[in-house]
Amino acid sequence: MAPPKSWLSIPEDSDFSLANIPFGIIRSKFSDGHRPAIPIGNHVLDLKAFSSAGGFAELTSFPKEHLSVFDSTTLNDFAALGQKTHENVRKYIQDVFSESTSHPEILKDNSELQKAALLPKHETKNLLPMKIGDYTDFYAGYNHAFNAGCLFRDPENALKPNYTHLPVGYHGRASSVVVSGTPIHRPQGQILPPGSQTPIHGPSKKLDIELELGCLLCTSNPMGTSLKLNGDAEEAIFGYVLMNDWSSRDIQRWEYVPLGPFNGKNFGTTISPWVVLPGALEPYRVKKLENKTELLPYLQEKRQDTVYDISLSIDLTIGGDEDPATTTIAKVSSSNLLWSFPQMIAHHTMGGCPMNVGDLLGSGTISGTSKNELGSLLEMGKDGKEGEELMLAGMNTRKWLLDGDVATFRGKAGEGVGFGECTGRVVGTSKH
Amino acid sequence: MAPPKSWLSIPEDSDFSLANIPFGIIRSKFSDGHRPAIPIGNHVLDLKAFSSAGGFAELTSFPKEHLSVFDSTTLNDFAALGQKTHENVRKYIQDVFSESTSHPEILKDNSELQKAALLPKHETKNLLPMKIGDYTDFYAGYNHAFNAGCLFRDPENALKPNYTHLPVGYHGRASSVVVSGTPIHRPQGQILPPGSQTPIHGPSKKLDIELELGCLLCTSNPMGTSLKLNGDAEEAIFGYVLMNDWSSRDIQRWEYVPLGPFNGKNFGTTISPWVVLPGALEPYRVKKLENKTELLPYLQEKRQDTVYDISLSIDLTIGGDEDPATTTIAKVSSSNLLWSFPQMIAHHTMGGCPMNVGDLLGSGTISGTSKNELGSLLEMGKDGKEGEELMLAGMNTRKWLLDGDVATFRGKAGEGVGFGECTGRVVGTSKH
Repeated sequence: MAPPKSWLSIPEDSDFSLANIPFGIIRSKFSDGHRPAIPIGNHVLDLKAFSSAGGFAELTSFPKEHLSVFDSTTLNDFAALGQKTHENVRKYIQDVFSESTSHPEILKDNSELQKAALLPKHETKNLLPMKIGDYTDFYAGYNHAFNAGCLFRDPENALKPNYTHLPVGYHGRASSVVVSGTPIHRPQGQILPPGSQTPIHGPSKKLDIELELGCLLCTSNPMGTSLKLNGDAEEAIFGYVLMNDWSSRDIQRWEYVPLGPFNGKNFGTTISPWVVLPGALEPYRVKKLENKTELLPYLQEKRQDTVYDISLSIDLTIGGDEDPATTTIAKVSSSNLLWSFPQMIAHHTMGGCPMNVGDLLGSGTISGTSKNELGSLLEMGKDGKEGEELMLAGMNTRKWLLDGDVATFRGKAGEGVGFGECTGRVVGTSKH
Repeated sequence: MAPPKSWLSIPEDSDFSLANIPFGIIRSKFSDGHRPAIPIGNHVLDLKAFSSAGGFAELTSFPKEHLSVFDSTTLNDFAALGQKTHENVRKYIQDVFSESTSHPEILKDNSELQKAALLPKHETKNLLPMKIGDYTDFYAGYNHAFNAGCLFRDPENALKPNYTHLPVGYHGRASSVVVSGTPIHRPQGQILPPGSQTPIHGPSKKLDIELELGCLLCTSNPMGTSLKLNGDAEEAIFGYVLMNDWSSRDIQRWEYVPLGPFNGKNFGTTISPWVVLPGALEPYRVKKLENKTELLPYLQEKRQDTVYDISLSIDLTIGGDEDPATTTIAKVSSSNLLWSFPQMIAHHTMGGCPMNVGDLLGSGTISGTSKNELGSLLEMGKDGKEGEELMLAGMNTRKWLLDGDVATFRGKAGEGVGFGECTGRVVGTSKH
């Protein structure tokens, strides 16, 4: 499906055609402070400037008293207005940029506002799109859960009996969620050397990536209530981002029993800057992985196409700024999930846990079934097994990330609808 | 040690003598909005009213531009000023209320300000003292960890090999931390009936309490850095609260492998309203439990008396408002910890995890070694084993909490230094 044509020049391969219209937070050298923005091709629309100059004058469904959400330094206030409003704003911006816009006076024929609000993308910087209250990471990527279970335990014990009955998840650390581009320090910590019974202290030698889809929320529920499937849970979704749940496998392995991952995860989690709305992904719905277990009623979805077919990829760049060489080490569809985000939300709130606008949920690592579809180095290198090195550009190899390595995730749902980059460079050991 | 005498009448058994001076957030019928306050005997000092009327005029070490922290609706801004400032303010308030105050004109002889700022405690309501960014629960209560491990697994496997090498912990859910007095809904969730391989859905039948000490932080560290023991980690502590980490044992047991507790915990965590400063607890330092394992250098403390001997108790009240009957079901010292809070902080940040002002750390359940010193019903009733009922006032029994039951924790360090109450009532099943 070709995206609608725009009066603004948009490169054909752009993630940010008029079919997309995601939201983020930027700062630019042209203006003070952080502000909401929308990327369109190689430009971004500064929503604070656009709004204050009357850009939303023709969006009659949008009450004027709500315009203050575009003065905010996060998307939380905008998100809290609800899915209908997000979609109205998205459709309005599509029209404003459309070649055949019904309101050319707003921007197409308004060179003054173009100058004030339409900025070259490379002259802006992205910030974390939302104030994240709580972050929960699920484990809904069936293939990854099985692969990791085989390596951390054994094939018979890889998936625990609860795995197909409920979306397994754990609470993550909200304070270490950062926006794409933020440097990642290699964590130090306790590591049990092979064959030893006494841990040593030092930099992690098994630094890994995890390819995930993240979901940001736009509704809240009071403590003691739940968000039900086939209604509340779907409406709680503001939008989606790519997520790298950086992981230290040696620290994680020693610490994680019996209460789960801790320092092996809380040193950094990177998300892509632009929040892609459900409306943009609607054409790319597909069925999730088949679950033969009969689910309890609160997890039964009326429709089965509740995940998306987004083509995800991992690029690994080595060699530093002087001699960079990039290899695509994985390509996998985001549909490799046993549980949808609405199911995760319904389960998360089943016992009355309150969600808040800006909460982040991670899908868990997404892997396919073939060798080129693995979402973590743990799986690619079979936990660093002899002879299982990754072959990279320039005859280099890797089992785990080295200092200076850059991991870049991309996601493309279809023509003109993508996520941009979720990238981070390993910059050496954390300070102590 | 008798507390200093005050010109204000303070009941002899009060937790809030001049030796204490903790901080909290209140609202009252006398004024609009939430504001910082200090409890003194049966009164509270409204710090917003006190400050705006010039109450801090003689605290020369306190820059005037900092007075806005007392206009805030949380203690975060005050906490961020650092331990030295907290202690200066505490000492100043001790002097203002002292019988032999050096500044009687401030409050002792100022009936107008007394009327405006010194409120009867029963006419005020407590709120959550801080905006909690992230909440982490540790597992530092050795006796509880052993007891729970025996019941969830087996005595040989009760403590995992990592337990004496590092303070095991997991990320909790900040959004469900509430102030004392907030009703707690019994969670619904998935439960595996004994002998079955298929979970059912329903209200938890094994609703439990966990007696913990909570620690609130007053410093931040950037991602990629750590807070070191014997300095930074100690200075990161704003103060302490009592904490009830309400737990659903049947939900927890089915869900917790391999990534840790989730819905079994995130339906509610109650903290006491007044943050007791390290200065007030200084006279009550004692040695923590002996750890025969040789610790890695980053966990070695210069002094061993890094926990406190606070006498904790659990009261269970049954029978509702009509016919209440209360039984004290446990009394235990808070010194039953294998790890101190500074050790927890040093470990938590070892890999570069950023802490923020207002973060909450829980000690883990505190139990002693005798039958009357157990911090959870799980331990008291041996996971609901036949014949292990609790005997309560009025010939009633309990294995787990019933709807209407009220659990009240108290903590007293010494004469005039206590925590008040950390209480909550089970009010029926969460809505779905």
